[in-house]
Order: sequence, then structure tokens, then C-alpha cells
Amino acid sequence: MDSTKKISHLALDIGGTLIKLVYFSANGDYSEESRNGCSVVHGKLCFAKFETRKIDDCLEFIRFNILHHSGVQHPNGVAHDKLYVKATGGGAFKFADLFKEKLGILFDKEDEMHSLVGGVNFLLKTVPREAFTYLDGQKEFVEIDHNDLYPYLLVNIGSGVSMIKVDGDGKYERISGTSLGGGTFLGLGKLLTKCKSFDELLELSHHGNNRVIDMLVGDIYGGTDYSKIGLSSTAIASSFGKAISDGKELEDYQPEDVARSLLRMISNNIGQIAYLNALRFGLKRIFFGGFFIRGLEYTMDTISVAVHFWSRGEAKAMFLRHEGFLGALGAFTSYSNQSHNDLKPHHHTVQRAILNCSGDNLRHIPVTSNLNDSETIECSINLV
Amino acid sequence: MDSTKKISHLALDIGGTLIKLVYFSANGDYSEESRNGCSVVHGKLCFAKFETRKIDDCLEFIRFNILHHSGVQHPNGVAHDKLYVKATGGGAFKFADLFKEKLGILFDKEDEMHSLVGGVNFLLKTVPREAFTYLDGQKEFVEIDHNDLYPYLLVNIGSGVSMIKVDGDGKYERISGTSLGGGTFLGLGKLLTKCKSFDELLELSHHGNNRVIDMLVGDIYGGTDYSKIGLSSTAIASSFGKAISDGKELEDYQPEDVARSLLRMISNNIGQIAYLNALRFGLKRIFFGGFFIRGLEYTMDTISVAVHFWSRGEAKAMFLRHEGFLGALGAFTSYSNQSHNDLKPHHHTVQRAILNCSGDNLRHIPVTSNLNDSETIECSINLV
Repeated sequence: MDSTKKISHLALDIGGTLIKLVYFSANGDYSEESRNGCSVVHGKLCFAKFETRKIDDCLEFIRFNILHHSGVQHPNGVAHDKLYVKATGGGAFKFADLFKEKLGILFDKEDEMHSLVGGVNFLLKTVPREAFTYLDGQKEFVEIDHNDLYPYLLVNIGSGVSMIKVDGDGKYERISGTSLGGGTFLGLGKLLTKCKSFDELLELSHHGNNRVIDMLVGDIYGGTDYSKIGLSSTAIASSFGKAISDGKELEDYQPEDVARSLLRMISNNIGQIAYLNALRFGLKRIFFGGFFIRGLEYTMDTISVAVHFWSRGEAKAMFLRHEGFLGALGAFTSYSNQSHNDLKPHHHTVQRAILNCSGDNLRHIPVTSNLNDSETIECSINLV
Repeated sequence: MDSTKKISHLALDIGGTLIKLVYFSANGDYSEESRNGCSVVHGKLCFAKFETRKIDDCLEFIRFNILHHSGVQHPNGVAHDKLYVKATGGGAFKFADLFKEKLGILFDKEDEMHSLVGGVNFLLKTVPREAFTYLDGQKEFVEIDHNDLYPYLLVNIGSGVSMIKVDGDGKYERISGTSLGGGTFLGLGKLLTKCKSFDELLELSHHGNNRVIDMLVGDIYGGTDYSKIGLSSTAIASSFGKAISDGKELEDYQPEDVARSLLRMISNNIGQIAYLNALRFGLKRIFFGGFFIRGLEYTMDTISVAVHFWSRGEAKAMFLRHEGFLGALGAFTSYSNQSHNDLKPHHHTVQRAILNCSGDNLRHIPVTSNLNDSETIECSINLV
């Protein structure tokens, strides 16, 4: 790596809806030990997110919580020297000038799909209890056999959805996608319910009943199944189909029922398209990531049921604890790739994921995170 | 066939949103000729539709335009004797009692998928210039080679969507479907635009611009393509995704733009899922039917482009002139199956589709249709 570049141990994934940050935070009882000629700093990987439309909040967060404490900041609030930061997602292109102007940060751009895959592979290989299944209300962690990880299908649900066949480290292909993603859920949800945020919309959907607005098979068949083709009377024949004939206006529906139907429609559709793509390539494992899921049980259940139903139990939907930060994590881990230090998980301390990163500006990054401790990843960083 | 059953030459397909009718109408210059011991009546197959929620209109239509003229009607408006009529769709179950009570009509129920397939096979084999492709604004009729018709994928877009692999006459399997269909378009469309009808919503969508609300790849990438994975800046990354960050309320959007995005979202999604299913079974031809399409150029274009894009030109989307009446036609043709008279198209009069049906109550059915002449099918019926 060019020694004139200064690295802040920060990586960004700037999507259409959300900005995701991953950064290293040294432990409060700042400890440094020497190992093979490197200084090792213990700490955590922390995670933060901002709405892309509120990008100023993100700039302020980085200015005060990362740059300010890292000793790279000029009195005018802008980093002196050229400070390169890993960035991915479309916003790495769209907002490059803004970050340069406001923070003196230059983006070292990483490809979006490459970062997503890098992030998932890092998590699956180094973080225990990362992947889990969710079926019939049961969350079950999955032991990942590192020698039998590939191939798998990665379904990243951001504003839109990307489906990537992963065959190994850095070996992947974007094989499909759909425009019905998290942006559709929130966009349509805002128009239909006047919700202001994703969290509010999810909370609403939690209390709703989709059968109020969805047209079920039983609604068409007069309460009976269409058993000949395996459709039960409670299967959804037409999402939002009851709104045709109810004679109701939007205001006459409960927003929670609308939110529920919307969540069901989009989750089910993603599950189905994911399954069909997994089938094409004989992929038995499908990992779902992206900020749409949020560990929400109903969403995971809908996706799992869709995959289970369509694949007749052949394919398995799996979820990731750090689902929302795949791209940002992938961009973060690419620091180590550049300095030719491979990722070396410490197998004897399975609770810790070790990142070997190069850099010299770590000393003063404080512990700052808006996520709880279970979601941060303990790690240490080599100062070379 | 039981000789105590009287057959009106009428068949119904009662779906969740629409009731579709097919009925035979003798020519005004009523002509009857004798052929092989049968009387042959020349006329047309006529088509009519009603909204399911306005089923009373349908009952009135049948009472006054079909029963009244067929000489089977009792003075109280109800058919005397038992009058059996072919009926398919979920409403054949749901509304059986209503038709019996109000019109004295008993439903001879035909399976929904069986009827759809029967209708398409009838059209493709007997009606010239029935199937066409639509690409780049060009409608092109397709010559169907009867010896090379199977297998094909039938995608019927009603309130919901059924996808059926067809391998021959009566040989088929429902392999997939999606709940995002015409009911979703109209249901969501009504809630979002306050449109009252499907026609109104389609008319709106005709004048809209989906880029106002859809988040494009260029919106995320600052105007540039994501060329590495073949996504142009104008590709839709997230349907309705712009509604997240615009800070607008529903009222601030033009209803035509909302309608356009909705139509694009649903058409594209159906095209993609259809393609993925065609791929599973190596089907090169996909016929799209159902009342959602309505010969609307933008819809057909979106579906065609989706199939073309995802299949890289390998699969072809085809449309049918009588797309909305597949199930009803299939139910109608099943009259001839029951009386062991196969469908015998007259090859020397290609403008005429010949239906051999049994029955004795045809004389007084007048020409009544709410569709124009190009959509009726000239035919003759044998009176045995």
C-alpha cells in the first residue's frame, strides 16, 4: 500500500436508502501488545447506519466520533493530508465529492458485489453463531463447515435485491435480482400508511393482518381449497386483491394491515425468485442479507416458508446476524487484502474475530456504537 | 351426456375480479344447413365480461340476452327444467347457489387449469392470427405449427398468476404462480390513485413516467451505469424507491406516475418469474394470457423485454388476441368433449373456427356482444 495514504479504520457502504459504517474501536482499557514485530490493539468492530437522505448526520458522526479522535483532523474539521477510506455501494460514486469537500476523505472504491461477498465470507468463516435458520418460530444457529461452504446463493435485500452465486473467495457472479426490495417496501409503505420510517413501518406490520386486504384462494373459491393443485384456502391468490371489491378507500383500512400485506408480498416474492435462481444452479443454501430483514421474525418466517414451499424442503433459507453490514464489512476487510495480510481467525479464541489491518491512526478511536454489544465483533488489529 | 340436461351454449369463468362469458350467437340472417344428419347453424362466439363484485349485472345479462331468447325461460325469469351450464374458476363453487336460485342454472363445473389449457389449445389450433409477439413496438403474428406446439408455458394473469407447463391436449401441470397479479395492480392502484376501474387505471398509466417514483441505478450511482454487472443507469434498482427520500406525500405525486410504476413493477416481475420457470423446463415459448394484459402495448412491451433480457433472447413472450377468455373458452369447448365430438377445424375456411356442440336451444340466441367484431370468432354449431 502507498505509504502516503493514511487509513482510518472505517469503511462505508452507501446505498440508495441507507449508509452503513463499520469501524474499529479500541477497548476502553486501551491495551497494546507486541506480537511478531507488530503492535496489536484489542477492540471491537462497531456498526452504525444513517439514512442516505440524511447524509449530513453521517458526515457529522464521522467528523466528531472518528476523525476528531484519530488525530488526523485539521482545526477546520477537515482531515489534513489525503485520508483514504474504503467505500462501496452506488454512493461511493455519487457522494465522493461531498466527502472530499466536507471531511477531506477520499474514497478508495470497492466494487459493491465484491464487497458483499467478501463480507459474507468473512462472517461465515470467522464469526461463530453468525448464520441461522428460522422456521416455525424457531431460530437455530448453523455450524458452517469451512470446507463445504461453497457454492451458495447470496440474496442481498437493499433498496433493490441482488442475487449472487458464490463459488469461493472472490469467485462470484451476480445472476439475478429484483427491483421489489426494501425500497419498495418503505416507498410504497410511506405512500400507503404515512409512516415516516422503516422502523415505524415494521412495527406497524407486526400488528397487522394481511387477510384483510389480500385475496385468498378461499375468497375466490367460496371458502374451499383448490386442493387439486395444492393451494389451500388460506394461500394468497392475489396480494392486495381484496381492495378491488371492498369498496373501501385507503383511509378505511388499518395501516397495520396494509403494512402487513406489503411485507408479506415483498418477502414472499423475494423468497420465490431466490429459490428459482438457486434451483438453476443446484444451490441448496441461500443466505439472505441486507437491511430489509432486520432480524424481524415475520419477514424471516415468510422468506423461509417461501423457500421451503417452492423447493419442497430441498433448499434452506439462512440468515446472518450482521445482515445489514455485509458490504461495509467486505469493504473493511479489503484493507487487509491490500496489505497482503490474509484474514487469520484465532481458532483458540472463537469468541474473537481477528482482523489484520495496517494503519497507524488507531490510538484514539473511542468506543462508539449505536448497536448493542452482541452485535459488535470483538477483534484486534495489528499496527504494522 | 344425460339427455335430461339442457345445454345453453354459454360458458362462464368466474374469477376473483372478473366474470368472463363465452356464448354462441347465430347469424342475423339465420341460416341452417344439413350436414351428415346434423343441422349446422352459422354464427359467432361472443365474449362478455363483468366485474365479479357486480355479479347482478351478469345475472341480468344472462337472463335477458341468453335465457329469454333461448326459449327455456319460465315466466318468473328462471329457467324451467334443469339447465346445466359449463362454469369454471373459483366462482363456479362460490356462486353456484346464486345462479341456481336466481336463474335456475346449474353449474357443470370444469377445473380451472384444465379450462385454461383447453382454451389456449383451441385458440392456437383453430383461430388464425391468434398469437403474436410484441417487441420494440412491433406486433407480429406468429404462425403456429400444430406439430410443434408443445411444450409451452402458459402464464395466466388474472387476479393472481398461474404458470402452467403444457405438454399436450389435457396434459399439463401447474408449476408455479405468483400473488402479484392483476388484482395487485388494481387493488394497490385503487388505494394509491383513487381510480375506480381497471380501464381508468390503465389509461392513467399510459400517460405516466415511472422514473418519477422508481429508484434507478443512476439515482444510486450518481448518474452512471453499474456496467460491471450489466446494469444501465436507467434500469430500475428499486420500484417505488424514490418515495423514501423525496419527502413527498402520496398527494404530491401525479397519479399517472404512480400507475405507471405499478404497472411496470408487476409486469416486469411476472416476466421474470415466467422466464425462470420456463428455464427450469427448457421451454422456449411463453404464452401470456388473462385480463391483465388487455392488449396494452406498454404491458406487453415490459413483459417481452423482461423475458428477452433475462433469457438473453432465448425465450419468447407471446400474446393471444382472446387472452381474457381462455378459461371460459376452455369450458365452452368442453361441451364438445362430453358429446364425443372432437374439435374439427375446417382447414379450407381458415377464417372460421368450427365448434361441434350438441344442444337444441340455439335458435333464438341473438347477436349480443360488448366486444367488437374482430374479437368474436366466426363458427358454426352442429345441432345433433
